[in-house]
Amino acid sequence: MSYSVSELAALLGLGYQGEGNRRLARASSWESADESSLVFLDNRKQRGSAQSPPSHACIITSPHGVPADRTAILSKNPKLDFSRAALLLTPPTYGQGRQHPTAIVSPGADVEKDVDLGPHVFVAPGARVGKACVVHAGVTIGAGCEIGGECILHPRVVLYPGAKLGNRVVLHAGTVVGSDGFGYVFDGQTHVKFPQIGSVVIEDDVEIGCNSTIDRGSLGVTRIGAGTKIDNLVQIAHNVEIGRAVVIAAQTGISGSTVIEDQAVIGGQVGFGDHARVEKGAIIGSKAGVLPGKIVRGGQVYWGVPVRPLAEYKRLNALFGRLPEMKAELQSLKDSVAKIWALLDGDEDD
Amino acid sequence: MSYSVSELAALLGLGYQGEGNRRLARASSWESADESSLVFLDNRKQRGSAQSPPSHACIITSPHGVPADRTAILSKNPKLDFSRAALLLTPPTYGQGRQHPTAIVSPGADVEKDVDLGPHVFVAPGARVGKACVVHAGVTIGAGCEIGGECILHPRVVLYPGAKLGNRVVLHAGTVVGSDGFGYVFDGQTHVKFPQIGSVVIEDDVEIGCNSTIDRGSLGVTRIGAGTKIDNLVQIAHNVEIGRAVVIAAQTGISGSTVIEDQAVIGGQVGFGDHARVEKGAIIGSKAGVLPGKIVRGGQVYWGVPVRPLAEYKRLNALFGRLPEMKAELQSLKDSVAKIWALLDGDEDD
Amino acid sequence: MSYSVSELAALLGLGYQGEGNRRLARASSWESADESSLVFLDNRKQRGSAQSPPSHACIITSPHGVPADRTAILSKNPKLDFSRAALLLTPPTYGQGRQHPTAIVSPGADVEKDVDLGPHVFVAPGARVGKACVVHAGVTIGAGCEIGGECILHPRVVLYPGAKLGNRVVLHAGTVVGSDGFGYVFDGQTHVKFPQIGSVVIEDDVEIGCNSTIDRGSLGVTRIGAGTKIDNLVQIAHNVEIGRAVVIAAQTGISGSTVIEDQAVIGGQVGFGDHARVEKGAIIGSKAGVLPGKIVRGGQVYWGVPVRPLAEYKRLNALFGRLPEMKAELQSLKDSVAKIWALLDGDEDD
Repeated sequence: MSYSVSELAALLGLGYQGEGNRRLARASSWESADESSLVFLDNRKQRGSAQSPPSHACIITSPHGVPADRTAILSKNPKLDFSRAALLLTPPTYGQGRQHPTAIVSPGADVEKDVDLGPHVFVAPGARVGKACVVHAGVTIGAGCEIGGECILHPRVVLYPGAKLGNRVVLHAGTVVGSDGFGYVFDGQTHVKFPQIGSVVIEDDVEIGCNSTIDRGSLGVTRIGAGTKIDNLVQIAHNVEIGRAVVIAAQTGISGSTVIEDQAVIGGQVGFGDHARVEKGAIIGSKAGVLPGKIVRGGQVYWGVPVRPLAEYKRLNALFGRLPEMKAELQSLKDSVAKIWALLDGDEDD
Repeated sequence: MSYSVSELAALLGLGYQGEGNRRLARASSWESADESSLVFLDNRKQRGSAQSPPSHACIITSPHGVPADRTAILSKNPKLDFSRAALLLTPPTYGQGRQHPTAIVSPGADVEKDVDLGPHVFVAPGARVGKACVVHAGVTIGAGCEIGGECILHPRVVLYPGAKLGNRVVLHAGTVVGSDGFGYVFDGQTHVKFPQIGSVVIEDDVEIGCNSTIDRGSLGVTRIGAGTKIDNLVQIAHNVEIGRAVVIAAQTGISGSTVIEDQAVIGGQVGFGDHARVEKGAIIGSKAGVLPGKIVRGGQVYWGVPVRPLAEYKRLNALFGRLPEMKAELQSLKDSVAKIWALLDGDEDD
Repeated sequence: MSYSVSELAALLGLGYQGEGNRRLARASSWESADESSLVFLDNRKQRGSAQSPPSHACIITSPHGVPADRTAILSKNPKLDFSRAALLLTPPTYGQGRQHPTAIVSPGADVEKDVDLGPHVFVAPGARVGKACVVHAGVTIGAGCEIGGECILHPRVVLYPGAKLGNRVVLHAGTVVGSDGFGYVFDGQTHVKFPQIGSVVIEDDVEIGCNSTIDRGSLGVTRIGAGTKIDNLVQIAHNVEIGRAVVIAAQTGISGSTVIEDQAVIGGQVGFGDHARVEKGAIIGSKAGVLPGKIVRGGQVYWGVPVRPLAEYKRLNALFGRLPEMKAELQSLKDSVAKIWALLDGDEDD
């Protein structure tokens, strides 16, 4: 899409200065920008740097201190509005019915006509793929899967049978949804597999990174709530329930039946034991560990293994660093007290 | 398969009450249960909950306190027996010779007639695939691989050339077996690859989750023992030896030449340095770290980085949390001792 | 390739003893060695072991204490020279123009004639694949990708559109290069995707393990420098810059815009916050955590969360283990001081 500066500003509900008629065709980095580019200037961060944004591009930035000769869209939250503008200039790709001759749609599968199917895609019997989806090369959609409209499945995504995706779900390359949970019962000799026959539901507007793994429920449901964003190489175990608009960074692992409530923010490489609960809006720092069954209260920031409120973690970590001093002080006190006793014993001996 | 309640109880070596002639067709969750369902009631956990199992399904539960009007199979270990029953009602899928026309079996490969091959499977020259295997869409089986009978390879599994699988091995989607180990020798300028020409053996009844990676030996063998179960996103490096009936949870990584003996249980996100050894039956908690060369004694539970016996870890972690108090006590003692000295000096001054 | 012992020694710039005319065809493990094998004897490690290298193979080892009757190539750094010898005996596989009939080269893609393309490969429009590359089964090469000469892409590798690889790059099975970075701006209700429209460059001689994920830049570039080696299941976020000859072990994750300078060595399961910097040659131990924005000085070894110089980490970890003693000593001191006060009060009461 392309918009004039004035059109784009109006769509964003923002003001502008300079050439209102200039056509903008795309969001760009500073390095690759031309006259049809919108570029992002974060006044707080980038002003101090030696670089300045390219003079030929339209910038989107905070209203304070923009040189009067620059064409600019003015925003109190330029990072957010640059993101919104980029989605207007380059909307997500929707399917247009381009189906590669090597794509296989099984008898009994129901794929809408405007779906794009890349090479070597396989859609198993009974699967449904909704309007305008884009299914990239080598994707496997298992029997009975249900996929809403306008989803994008990047190359090599695998959906196990019965997985359910809402609308506008984006799954990146190599991600697996609906695999068996990891549950066994030991009989003294062998590990007998506990049935992994539940379901998995990925709600609207979820985006999941590359090579992540989402197990289906053992008997119940694994659910990822609407608008949640998950990074690469994340593990979600059976029966986990994740709320709406949650953010989970790379390489985090969530054990069975744990609940992450709405708008929680989870760093990278965090580990959750089973049956834990993270309340709404809690923020958990990278590499933290949450014990099984633990309840993490909402609206706070947590760090460490096991997790503690950030202020406590910082205090403890600082004291940990001062252990050598504490040990030296302890030794000094011991010496001092020994001298006192020597003195007192001497007194008594007198 | 379907069995009557009395037949199923007899196969499990258990008693029952109620309608012995009722036909059971499947294990179910409570939510999806109908009259032909067997459902699992964990008396210890679920009794306290507000929910109760659906009245129309047959339950399998402990003999104590089952209402007399319920059809039930009675077990001292209902979770185990429910798992065993589920395997009777829904046995693993075996191949029946369904070979998709897009599956490629190279000249010189030897695939048994009753193997299922999904779309876009590739079996390289010299590979052997045993009786009744199920090879799902997009699996790649490298040259000279040897696969036993009744294995299940989920979509996108990759076996590098020469990988050996026993019988009834299950590999979930995206898992890679037999890749190059990570070994280089620095020559002062570049990292020269150490030869990664060994082998990898996955023994009978091993199950490995999604997107895990099992490197082959550099010169020797990487071996995963019979009945071992490995979760998603696990890394097993070159020359690792894992014993029988070991359990390894998600995102754990095991460095080169480390040995994990039989029946060890390893939590998620654990890291092992190279050349470590975990003795038989040791249990290592999630997120623990085992130093290179470390020997972890069997029959105990370990936590922490570096690992310590659980009781010690707990004591240290509790003391860590009390560092602020210790610091305050230390300060208070210093003050007190200073006062004593002042007093004593005063005395002496007298 | 095959060489006589004397030829191979000369190529390596080394001396030898014994049968200079014996033909060597391959590097081997001790177990699989025959008369045409070169095997590696690490004098420091393996001499003490009960085993000795097979008498019929040529060994490469340190000059000290080799029995006079053995055929041997003599090296001051036998591990390095064994690796160099193995590369001479078994050079990397180059493409010879074997293109499987199921491989798809889109119109407008430019694949050199001598490239090998495995089954079910997909090369999208505008992609370029350089001389003598080997592209294994099921690889997807996105639109506009540029791949240098003699690269090896193992099965199921995915390159997102526009990814750039240098020469002799090796990507192992399931690895993804050029995926969207994980960047969103919260608008109070939903997470709006920040544009992920940058590029990714993998320079010459980089090798990346299985199922790793390398995001492209959001606006700028993600770059992995020449000769860098990356293990399995590693996450590299958007705009990360990795220098030359860096080594990164399995399951490590590097957050956005972090810089790792040349020849740094990073252990497994390490986590880096965003905008951190690791200076040239720094060594970071497994499971370490580097805070956002942290600068890790070069030429030292670091451990822990957050990272500290190794000596400091060791001292603190030792003191952590002695917390129970410190607590006991503190208690003992408190008792002692209380007794002193009692005595002094008694004195004063006198």
